[in-house]
Amino acid sequence: MNIDSIQNGIIIDHITAGKGMEIYQLLDLAKLSCMVALINNAHSAKMGRKDIIKIDSNIELDTDILGYVDPNVTVTIIRDGKVAEKKHLSLPHELEGVLHCRNPRCICSVEQELPQIFRLTDEKKRIYRCIYCDSTF
Amino acid sequence: MNIDSIQNGIIIDHITAGKGMEIYQLLDLAKLSCMVALINNAHSAKMGRKDIIKIDSNIELDTDILGYVDPNVTVTIIRDGKVAEKKHLSLPHELEGVLHCRNPRCICSVEQELPQIFRLTDEKKRIYRCIYCDSTF
Repeated sequence: MNIDSIQNGIIIDHITAGKGMEIYQLLDLAKLSCMVALINNAHSAKMGRKDIIKIDSNIELDTDILGYVDPNVTVTIIRDGKVAEKKHLSLPHELEGVLHCRNPRCICSVEQELPQIFRLTDEKKRIYRCIYCDSTF
Repeated sequence: MNIDSIQNGIIIDHITAGKGMEIYQLLDLAKLSCMVALINNAHSAKMGRKDIIKIDSNIELDTDILGYVDPNVTVTIIRDGKVAEKKHLSLPHELEGVLHCRNPRCICSVEQELPQIFRLTDEKKRIYRCIYCDSTF
């Protein structure tokens, strides 16, 4: 089973097998009116199995969420049937509105209008800390 | 964006646009180790937009769940690259273990080992009734 190339759109490739659905839901792709394909367990020479998401439109993608969930992912932007851009993601330095502080005494738990912001403090261990109270996620 | 044909597997086609994910989850397709593709908002001459699910293996499908969620669906079984069988679904006459009786005094709510069985009593209005207490779903 193969998926043909798209003319204008986005390919999220090299997703760790099993994580495609999580990314699909975090990016809220079910709400799009364009064609979207989620392929689980595609063959991959490098990874054995991988998931792929193809979006038949050039939407704005939240690469911070993508990088956080699966930093090995590659994002390819297709315009007029040609590769216009290829992005390799990494763990984002800062995450806003993705993680939620679990410290009930943190100022961001009390003041609901404050944005939930976390900063990467240890890249190897993937540790993010709340910028207000320093709690880890 | 097109999806090539598969050699051995199942194509669930003509899914009402937006219902593909519900079917994907009800059939527990995330647990399969074979390749599975969920395509949302594919072009359809008949339906305008439709969802499609392709499964790269001849698994056992629960056509009762499929018929209940979306009776317009067609199921095509592919063997050695050829159409071996094509099924048009309809609302199943009886559903076991899909719907759950909401009557707290029903015998099946008290006796937990009893199977939850509902029978179709009105096909036009899609009404199912519990076989024990006659409650509608």
